[in-house]
Amino acid sequence: MTPARGRPRDRGADDRIAGAALGLLREQGPGGVHIDAVASRAGVARTTVYRRYRDREALLAATLGQLAEAPFPARDLPLRDKLVWLLEQALVLVDEQLGRGAVAAVLADSDPALSAALRAHLVRQLTALQGEIDADIAAGRVRAGTDGESLADLALGSYLAQLLRHGRARRGWADGIVDLLLRGTDPAPG
Amino acid sequence: MTPARGRPRDRGADDRIAGAALGLLREQGPGGVHIDAVASRAGVARTTVYRRYRDREALLAATLGQLAEAPFPARDLPLRDKLVWLLEQALVLVDEQLGRGAVAAVLADSDPALSAALRAHLVRQLTALQGEIDADIAAGRVRAGTDGESLADLALGSYLAQLLRHGRARRGWADGIVDLLLRGTDPAPG
Repeated sequence: MTPARGRPRDRGADDRIAGAALGLLREQGPGGVHIDAVASRAGVARTTVYRRYRDREALLAATLGQLAEAPFPARDLPLRDKLVWLLEQALVLVDEQLGRGAVAAVLADSDPALSAALRAHLVRQLTALQGEIDADIAAGRVRAGTDGESLADLALGSYLAQLLRHGRARRGWADGIVDLLLRGTDPAPG
Repeated sequence: MTPARGRPRDRGADDRIAGAALGLLREQGPGGVHIDAVASRAGVARTTVYRRYRDREALLAATLGQLAEAPFPARDLPLRDKLVWLLEQALVLVDEQLGRGAVAAVLADSDPALSAALRAHLVRQLTALQGEIDADIAAGRVRAGTDGESLADLALGSYLAQLLRHGRARRGWADGIVDLLLRGTDPAPG
């Protein structure tokens, strides 16, 4: 493979460091993410980490900046399927990428560096999502006036509420959520 | 005031114990809620607490069982206002009744006794909410098929998502959420 342009020479170390930080975050919660532990898990020297990131905050920001983002579904997919996809992204973010401990720490505001890094990541995701929604509105596939931030909050939040209520998403959970996100509660929407 | 029937003699101690446990939960998070601290804050002897609650789990269950529940809004209130009310209840539950530390602990599954007590409380609330929704559906005020659990998850969750993204609910937050919960995203709902 051809190396991407503009990357530092030792791309492998970058990837190992980000992978180690994400693994620690997911498995041990934010308390497990510190430079020593990341260096050890990545198999690099502490100085290798410090040369790239001046502190834990910079490391967290870079790490969450490298979270894989799933491509948006095809634009002509039915709206229902796009909403199911959005709920799946909430589950992936919380359970596979961050871990519940990280989400809990941001909610409790106990790790400001993590909160800042996560919020920056969510802003990037939302900007992209709003672009998709605007295209769908322009094409008549989504109701005009649909607000991307509200939709994202509802999707992510409904998964968090499932975790609060059951410790996991119940089977069929997405069906009721998608139905409401599609059709709303108003018996005669104007 | 006439004492409620069936209450134990020392109603004042019950109330002080529940009030102390809720205060500790909100201010210090679930780690602050243990029998000694509750007894001390309530101004009662440890034995007074233990006579009523065999352990911390029973104390938490009884405490969350006493959380004040706001009366439902008048049935003929516009649906939009009822949805605003539902979002307000999410804020009250998280910020005024439980505290964010408690919510975070349940999300991270770090305090099983608290998780069990909170889930029992949410089941009681949801049962009551579904009754209201069913009445509104029967009267044609809410779209048939509206699922109370999904609606409650969306309301509570959207507030949690705001906390994740901003640390607090942004001004005007409820407007976009209510719009989506009323009208959905489908440009031509059938």
